[in-house]
Amino acid sequence: MEQRDPLFSDEPEDTQIAILKATFDALAEHGYADLTIDRIGQYFPKSQGLIFYHYDGKDDLLIDLLDHLLERFEQIGMPVSDEGDSETRLRSLFDQVIPETSEQPDQKYEKVLIELRTQAAQDEEYQKCFNQSHDIFRESVQQIIQDGIESGDFRETDPDLVADFLVTLVSGDIFERVTTGSRRSILSELDNYIEYRLLADKEHNEDELNNT
Amino acid sequence: MEQRDPLFSDEPEDTQIAILKATFDALAEHGYADLTIDRIGQYFPKSQGLIFYHYDGKDDLLIDLLDHLLERFEQIGMPVSDEGDSETRLRSLFDQVIPETSEQPDQKYEKVLIELRTQAAQDEEYQKCFNQSHDIFRESVQQIIQDGIESGDFRETDPDLVADFLVTLVSGDIFERVTTGSRRSILSELDNYIEYRLLADKEHNEDELNNT
Repeated sequence: MEQRDPLFSDEPEDTQIAILKATFDALAEHGYADLTIDRIGQYFPKSQGLIFYHYDGKDDLLIDLLDHLLERFEQIGMPVSDEGDSETRLRSLFDQVIPETSEQPDQKYEKVLIELRTQAAQDEEYQKCFNQSHDIFRESVQQIIQDGIESGDFRETDPDLVADFLVTLVSGDIFERVTTGSRRSILSELDNYIEYRLLADKEHNEDELNNT
Repeated sequence: MEQRDPLFSDEPEDTQIAILKATFDALAEHGYADLTIDRIGQYFPKSQGLIFYHYDGKDDLLIDLLDHLLERFEQIGMPVSDEGDSETRLRSLFDQVIPETSEQPDQKYEKVLIELRTQAAQDEEYQKCFNQSHDIFRESVQQIIQDGIESGDFRETDPDLVADFLVTLVSGDIFERVTTGSRRSILSELDNYIEYRLLADKEHNEDELNNT
């Protein structure tokens, strides 16, 4: 996984950003179920009253944090989308979201993302926010697959089904890392999937496969 | 996905099971963050006092529910483990955990599982319970891959890496279904992964692949 810029600076000057950072830190430490404005206040260097000046309450604040986090997630798909061949673009995309085994990320970002995304099971507003980012990421993957098929880099597949498969894998990877504490990496087997299943020069037995 | 027995009967006779069912129903409806003994009581036809007779409190009750849910999950890997060729065993295993697109499962079981598993990010006792089931499922997959390589059904791969990849995919599938509300299915692309990546009779360009 490539080195990322920190999501927040250590001491944000903007009060609203400082509140978001405090909420983020409190969520990473205590989880959604145990989050209170008091707990958020412990990570906020200024008066707690300012939180209520900027936000109607916890729910309002969390939706704003979610927007802030997802903006970052949505940027991931963008910068690589037009450079290089499809295989390189696809690998670059996954390098940004899946860490190597040897890396020791603090996973705060992923942890907070999972905490909030689990709320999407109950809350339509969360689900709407997440689904929007999810679709952007999924479309990036789908576009790369489609471009690769058109350029002849990739064999003929259904880009929608491949994109669903890969996006599911990324979700699973984040969820597994956060909840199991494991540092196994799926990157090398993902490489094998790309190589055996997607790359056109590995194509073989085409007729036989078309019949299955 | 094969039809599964319901996790609980409609009106369990055993009081303790009835409490677990009430907790399960309350969790599926309200989520972990909004779960209270009062809410659980609304799904329990007898006196709320009985909940405290059987359990020290919410945490104690949830760990017991988790054990109950995971017991079921752990059974999934077992029955198919010795019958048929490796490809059939692998497909049977995934048929039990991944639904077809056309299916309309109520997903209560998956929802509750995700709610509780997200707590494993904060709580070591939850993490320990989940990791144990997770390892059992993962070992089933790994064993099938290894058997398949030995019997010549599958090509040479690292069974550990393939198992991690597949288990991550299953986790992602459950997490995606619960949080996005989507009914897309990854089953057909999973079939393609099995076909192109795992099956030995699709093997080709072996020397070239070994050099990459």
